[in-house]
Amino acid sequence: MRTPWRSAVGLRPVITRMTDLFVRTLRQDPSDAEVPSHRWLVRAGYIRRVAPGIYSWLPLGLRVLQKVEQIVRDEMNAMGAQEVRFPALLPREPYEATGRWTEYGPNLFRLADRKRADLLLGPTHEEMFTLMVKDLYSSYKDLPLSLYQIQTKYRDEARPRAGLLRGREFVMKDSYSFDIDDAGLQASYDAHRAAYRRIFDRLGLDYVIVSATSGAMGGSASEEFLAIAEIGEDTFVRSPGGYAANVEAVQRPLTPARDAAGVPAAHVEDTPDSPTIDTLVALSNDRFPRADRAWGAADTLKNVVFMLRDPDGTRTPLAVGLPGDREVDLKRLEAAVAPAEVEPFGDEDFAAHPQLVKGYIGPRRAGAEAGLGTAADGAGVRYLTDPAVAEGTRWITGANEAGRHVYDLVCGRDFGSDGVLDVAEIRDGDPAPDGSGPLALARGIEMGHIFQLGRKYADALGLKVLDPNGKLVTVTMGSYGIGVSRAVAAVAEATCDDKGLAWPRNLAPFDVHIVATGKDAAVVEFAAALAEKLDAAGIAVLLDDRVASPGVKFTDAELLGMPTSVVVGRTLAHGVVEVRDRASGERSEVAADAVADTLIALLMP
Amino acid sequence: MRTPWRSAVGLRPVITRMTDLFVRTLRQDPSDAEVPSHRWLVRAGYIRRVAPGIYSWLPLGLRVLQKVEQIVRDEMNAMGAQEVRFPALLPREPYEATGRWTEYGPNLFRLADRKRADLLLGPTHEEMFTLMVKDLYSSYKDLPLSLYQIQTKYRDEARPRAGLLRGREFVMKDSYSFDIDDAGLQASYDAHRAAYRRIFDRLGLDYVIVSATSGAMGGSASEEFLAIAEIGEDTFVRSPGGYAANVEAVQRPLTPARDAAGVPAAHVEDTPDSPTIDTLVALSNDRFPRADRAWGAADTLKNVVFMLRDPDGTRTPLAVGLPGDREVDLKRLEAAVAPAEVEPFGDEDFAAHPQLVKGYIGPRRAGAEAGLGTAADGAGVRYLTDPAVAEGTRWITGANEAGRHVYDLVCGRDFGSDGVLDVAEIRDGDPAPDGSGPLALARGIEMGHIFQLGRKYADALGLKVLDPNGKLVTVTMGSYGIGVSRAVAAVAEATCDDKGLAWPRNLAPFDVHIVATGKDAAVVEFAAALAEKLDAAGIAVLLDDRVASPGVKFTDAELLGMPTSVVVGRTLAHGVVEVRDRASGERSEVAADAVADTLIALLMP
Repeated sequence: MRTPWRSAVGLRPVITRMTDLFVRTLRQDPSDAEVPSHRWLVRAGYIRRVAPGIYSWLPLGLRVLQKVEQIVRDEMNAMGAQEVRFPALLPREPYEATGRWTEYGPNLFRLADRKRADLLLGPTHEEMFTLMVKDLYSSYKDLPLSLYQIQTKYRDEARPRAGLLRGREFVMKDSYSFDIDDAGLQASYDAHRAAYRRIFDRLGLDYVIVSATSGAMGGSASEEFLAIAEIGEDTFVRSPGGYAANVEAVQRPLTPARDAAGVPAAHVEDTPDSPTIDTLVALSNDRFPRADRAWGAADTLKNVVFMLRDPDGTRTPLAVGLPGDREVDLKRLEAAVAPAEVEPFGDEDFAAHPQLVKGYIGPRRAGAEAGLGTAADGAGVRYLTDPAVAEGTRWITGANEAGRHVYDLVCGRDFGSDGVLDVAEIRDGDPAPDGSGPLALARGIEMGHIFQLGRKYADALGLKVLDPNGKLVTVTMGSYGIGVSRAVAAVAEATCDDKGLAWPRNLAPFDVHIVATGKDAAVVEFAAALAEKLDAAGIAVLLDDRVASPGVKFTDAELLGMPTSVVVGRTLAHGVVEVRDRASGERSEVAADAVADTLIALLMP
Repeated sequence: MRTPWRSAVGLRPVITRMTDLFVRTLRQDPSDAEVPSHRWLVRAGYIRRVAPGIYSWLPLGLRVLQKVEQIVRDEMNAMGAQEVRFPALLPREPYEATGRWTEYGPNLFRLADRKRADLLLGPTHEEMFTLMVKDLYSSYKDLPLSLYQIQTKYRDEARPRAGLLRGREFVMKDSYSFDIDDAGLQASYDAHRAAYRRIFDRLGLDYVIVSATSGAMGGSASEEFLAIAEIGEDTFVRSPGGYAANVEAVQRPLTPARDAAGVPAAHVEDTPDSPTIDTLVALSNDRFPRADRAWGAADTLKNVVFMLRDPDGTRTPLAVGLPGDREVDLKRLEAAVAPAEVEPFGDEDFAAHPQLVKGYIGPRRAGAEAGLGTAADGAGVRYLTDPAVAEGTRWITGANEAGRHVYDLVCGRDFGSDGVLDVAEIRDGDPAPDGSGPLALARGIEMGHIFQLGRKYADALGLKVLDPNGKLVTVTMGSYGIGVSRAVAAVAEATCDDKGLAWPRNLAPFDVHIVATGKDAAVVEFAAALAEKLDAAGIAVLLDDRVASPGVKFTDAELLGMPTSVVVGRTLAHGVVEVRDRASGERSEVAADAVADTLIALLMP
């Protein structure tokens, strides 16, 4: 049989030979690879796709995954959280009680068993942990409590992408804190936040902590840990003064109210051939010039209509009014209206709402039938406006008639809305909401998310304990997630280059990759002896003992990405081998009889 | 925050206090507990039920599970198998290709995703491993290969029972071997068999290796590892000469043919009031006595009809003829006809088959319409007979008319069957099929199952490699399973007593349970200091620091089942503490100032 193989966790390593290792490297990119980490993880034989968003871990990949798991486990234990493991296959009832059975909509994998009982594959486990604590605990003396699991999760993503970055089956660390009061929750939240910092530091990720929205999870405060990466799906902003938020969570302040006493009465004008904001502005400056300055796009009020689909399938229209120099950011809108989903307002929808004239939508004017009224008018379309649409601001906007716009329409005087909704795109240079300077946009991969859930789940499922006065009080909870399988991809993304993977030492499947080139018996012997020496010192060695050209072996060594490789080849005759550092590309000649000690000193300090 | 908590695997232990530990012990048996291990694992707070056959692991239980996982991982690595991890959520197509999508029938959890693609929750992964090896490997040089995973599996059991023993979501180690030829498969099989012996030895289980049937898995040779336990679901037999088999796999030899020259011609007789074998035998001895000896039940031929339901829903009748002194063993029948399921032959079925006269079924006689013909007769009911129904044997059996039986019906002369089917119950004292002496029956829990699959999956999915002559040959495979979560229950079952759990040292969640009784400050201090000393020596300590009566603490210590406990109480004033061994019940007084060294010497040799 084979050379014994040891797992990445908890065992003295044993030399692995490339001729034994279950791996196959690819010289071509897989057709579905959208991002570098995905491409290299597949080409280097770390993972393989089984179905959209569903992957298998090959030996090399699993070793990295297990090392990430162990770092997470270490730090969760160190903060006093206790490890448990819940099933992935869960009954419907608890999720029904909190509304999430419905709210999750098509993102939930649902199934029925042979007795037609409804089951789901857990996307997160708030309900189950709440019920478990309710089952076991009953007193304030039992709290605070933090529980976690490292477990497989399921989400039927509409668009699984980028390999492990957005999968449908993935490994997550989820934890939950239970406290008697808000101060306790804050302390548990802070402890998780500190543990997360240690975890992402140990993973070597360049990350940022940003304010976030709570989404389907509910609750109040929440922050995300984003690994900074161009291919990230999340956009965040930072200011020089320390403001940091996911764009979904940015709340621009309300523009202060203005005095509109000098603004003339609203007047409707013909505006032919002005289908866009740009053409409307040009026409306005041409035909209705303003005395003090030229009209700009920011003087126009753009009204965009959407359909919101609730998880139960109900569709409701929503109109958003915002300055014409900004677009609606769909991700910000989606975050704001979750769990509802956003759909375009189609031609049939316009047909069903004759008061909305496509291309010329504006607030309803006194006595008119058409246009956007407030809900109080019974107009049937909810109308929310941007924070810039403040009391006293004047606008050029649609007149609810084809080919006509209205000028000098003043907010508060001539129209109102059902409220404020800040879903306009955030731009580089926009002021930070807290006054800490101009915002810079960047992208990141969501690695962790921490929530102060509060009492939502405890209320829904009746988790109460006796307080020191013998009174039943509802427990307050936090929920905290880390994408463990995603972290493997995020680290790969951050460290790879144009030759392949380049693992940091603490996550690499092997510490040293020995490449023996040529067929010279002395080379083969020396490489094997070196492997033995390193192994005896506790260093995990991958030995390329294949019959293959040096070129193939060098290419594979760079592709597989062990932090250090040793080339044993022709120069051995002169008593020299080459040590290569994968990350820096540095190569150094080392005396063959000193290389073992050199590496041991380097790797086992 | 809390005292840091360390997981069972790979970390220096840290003292855990009962006031921190997420546990609640129960004084009452859970209502659904059918077996001792289930009762104690729930009462001691190791596991909790989430849904039928679906359990959560609490901190204590998870530590045991992780220790079992690590033993399995160790030994699989040591035999040269490589760890991988496949998803649980799998596409339909590969299981369609091998027929298992259908064959698994209602035991498979099936679901559809948002795009209506069919998915399943993997019961085992033969298909996926076959495809993966096909993807990566192409040459005989790549073989032999053994891959394994420790992973969550799903089976929608009709009757989940006994807690972790028969669950619907469970942890399994499954491995697969790939070889170029039969000799290679045998070597891989033998290596797995040896590794399994080491694993079950390390788990401390009293087990037996028995011949088994291959069931839905297909393939040829297979053996089961059964932990001997009265509550086990499997019945096995052993002989003094070393024969050992699951009763489902026992094949009784054919009774040799006899010379029936002297047997009179068959004759039909009225047999009123003889609805049972006993009454028929009594009536026969009374009215139609035999010259040489009395008739016995073994002289009657009982014909039992069943309906077999194929996984696609088709129902086909099957008649089984066997001596009247034996019953059909339903589990043996089920194993023999799998993947078809066995259903009773109901009144409607009798109505649809008028040739079968309920209570008087017998082989069809020449010229008759009624009765069981062979398939060659086109009689419509497949008729299989017991190995005892040999050529030349004479029988009393149903005459296919109410109230009448036929006598001196000779097999071969007067009737035939479609073949032999050995599904009669096996009895204590039956001869072993290999002549190695009388069989003894016992029960066991299936802990492992090893299969020589052969080429079934490789053929279905096209896994071929080039042999040394450059010819494509189909790979031959083995498949090998261990019930990892089930092992936790099996060990608990084997070691528990009437006070609770009693773990072996290598699987216990903690090495030492320190019980501090009373409120004396010296006791509290000593217990804490002892915990520190043991912890510093690398011993995992559970410290009962609760404000509770000594009785409660002692009861809980016995229930939780750590192998060693130390009682620090009133006797401390005299410089003495008590050390208790959970398994033997032995108690010894030890000088307080020597107890740390005593325990370190005992536990860290």
